[in-house]
Amino acid sequence: MSKGGPHGEPRVAIAVHGGAGRLLRARPGPSTNVRAGGRSNELLAETPRAAASPDVAGGLSQEQQAHYHSELRRALEAGHAVLAQSGSSLDAVVAAVALLEDSPGFNAGRGSVLNHEGHVEMDACIMHGQGLRSGAVAGVRGVRNPVLAAREVMNSPYVLLAGSGAESFAQERNLRMETPEYFVTASRLSQWRRLVGEPVADDELPAAEQDGHEFGTVGAVALDAHGDLAAATSTGGLANKRWGRVGDSPIVGAGTYADNRSAAVSATGQGEAFLRIAAAHDICARVRYLGVTLTEAVRAVIDGELAAVGASGGVIAMDRDGNVVFGMNDLGMFRGSIDVHGVVTTAIYADE
Amino acid sequence: MSKGGPHGEPRVAIAVHGGAGRLLRARPGPSTNVRAGGRSNELLAETPRAAASPDVAGGLSQEQQAHYHSELRRALEAGHAVLAQSGSSLDAVVAAVALLEDSPGFNAGRGSVLNHEGHVEMDACIMHGQGLRSGAVAGVRGVRNPVLAAREVMNSPYVLLAGSGAESFAQERNLRMETPEYFVTASRLSQWRRLVGEPVADDELPAAEQDGHEFGTVGAVALDAHGDLAAATSTGGLANKRWGRVGDSPIVGAGTYADNRSAAVSATGQGEAFLRIAAAHDICARVRYLGVTLTEAVRAVIDGELAAVGASGGVIAMDRDGNVVFGMNDLGMFRGSIDVHGVVTTAIYADE
Repeated sequence: MSKGGPHGEPRVAIAVHGGAGRLLRARPGPSTNVRAGGRSNELLAETPRAAASPDVAGGLSQEQQAHYHSELRRALEAGHAVLAQSGSSLDAVVAAVALLEDSPGFNAGRGSVLNHEGHVEMDACIMHGQGLRSGAVAGVRGVRNPVLAAREVMNSPYVLLAGSGAESFAQERNLRMETPEYFVTASRLSQWRRLVGEPVADDELPAAEQDGHEFGTVGAVALDAHGDLAAATSTGGLANKRWGRVGDSPIVGAGTYADNRSAAVSATGQGEAFLRIAAAHDICARVRYLGVTLTEAVRAVIDGELAAVGASGGVIAMDRDGNVVFGMNDLGMFRGSIDVHGVVTTAIYADE
Repeated sequence: MSKGGPHGEPRVAIAVHGGAGRLLRARPGPSTNVRAGGRSNELLAETPRAAASPDVAGGLSQEQQAHYHSELRRALEAGHAVLAQSGSSLDAVVAAVALLEDSPGFNAGRGSVLNHEGHVEMDACIMHGQGLRSGAVAGVRGVRNPVLAAREVMNSPYVLLAGSGAESFAQERNLRMETPEYFVTASRLSQWRRLVGEPVADDELPAAEQDGHEFGTVGAVALDAHGDLAAATSTGGLANKRWGRVGDSPIVGAGTYADNRSAAVSATGQGEAFLRIAAAHDICARVRYLGVTLTEAVRAVIDGELAAVGASGGVIAMDRDGNVVFGMNDLGMFRGSIDVHGVVTTAIYADE
């Protein structure tokens, strides 16, 4: 934890995440063994020397940790710079999420996982706490920054666009498109080859399969000087996903929600579970209807609802006073915040 | 209102809807004038003699009303027959919704509206109140009964599948597929030609445009003899929709939700608004957290939240005691129920 810059004047705050997972249980080694024990951590494979780095024992190496702390801090600072100039929380979460999309170490934008057919298909959502305006894209290919596409959707008559239609929309709005080569990193290609080489039952992916490859979703929540909350989430989804699978990230109320009357929330984890419990909206509903604190609401949803459906993951949340809550039932979540006092915090493990 | 059959033994109930709209304001005439005044009612065009029926003055003709009452009753009876034999609420809502999908008079399955490119692209969702299991498909073509596809998704590791991937999934599960000719009715084709012949701004569809063509979504909620709630919704979405637009119907928490701890809900109306307010989940959250009755929760969401974002529509909802609530802020909603006493009710106008 360290003091932030001298921007303490407006009451603004931002928090980001870069995915949750069982970070302490990771046992990097030869790539064919990464999934051993049913607990893989694909995030490890995203830093340059991760694949067989001998200095990694029971978790991330010091170098890897430093890399993630640095990327989280850059995202926070990008968003906070917007807020410090009285910019909107929408612009702030876009700036933070777009930076993490461009960073190949996370499962969003560049560096996204590949679906079963070997394509990067991305989801993103954005929501403004004032007026509940929102926009989202699901299953888009080629869009460099899905969060920018989501924002354009928010400014259209629609809320959610999917597939090739959403890609056409992004192109019509002159958003930057990239070739597949831009998105696909060597480690994601290696991950995909490993996954498709194995027999994957259509009916029932083993739980470990679902556990291991969602992590790396990115998101941000922010409060601006005008008192408005916003949230954004972006992801490549589940590695080796099939049949046009869409998770919680682009779904208003599931992976993303913002309401000035309660809170802003961005989630990461087993998307299907977050969809079923309408996680982000449920946190906001508890704050609004039960009158509990944001911390209590997050805890009830993560430890109660999410656990009840047997799933894991985490959320970042912010209330109207700029209080930041990190909640997770995994052993770690890449996360950070710049609070209303300008204090910058970044963390990885749950006990940090 | 009339007495239902002699199945009064188990405490079961079912309710259905076939879309909400400004039914009393409809002024059928030559098709080029149907949209006059900014208030069209495309449902009218779905009955055989609607296009220029001289005996229609300020609303549906007696014949048209009788047709819709009959179709709603058939759907109710199909679902109730399942419940009366101690079948599950899931099977009941599937039976009711599938029947309405097959009926060309509603905007779901056969008789769905066409998107901007002239294709039928359908959305459906199903959810079980016990364990919050759910499944949904978005933007699927060729699947005869999207609600059956949603149910298959519920039995997979996924919750939401979209586009061609979802179609492949449906085919792999041996669901019945149909050619475009099956889905496209003459009146929907006529509607589409009228819509695409007009200049439609990309940025801003006039409000009336959004108002007029969503209606006809179908849905059902049910309580079975085991005490389990379920909900299902199916739709062709918005007429002339572009860019892979997805509305609230296939979104868990927005157009569809079921939780044994609170209620089962299926919505219809301006989908974007229902997404933004997470309407179905919000109704359930209010029951659960505020301790209000289902009627109060529905009223707060329809008259409060939905109105606050300037939108219209309706919901059907059922609590664990089988109490049915119909809520709408339009002038009508095709709807009906068979209550716990076996009483069959069908209605169209708001004041019925």
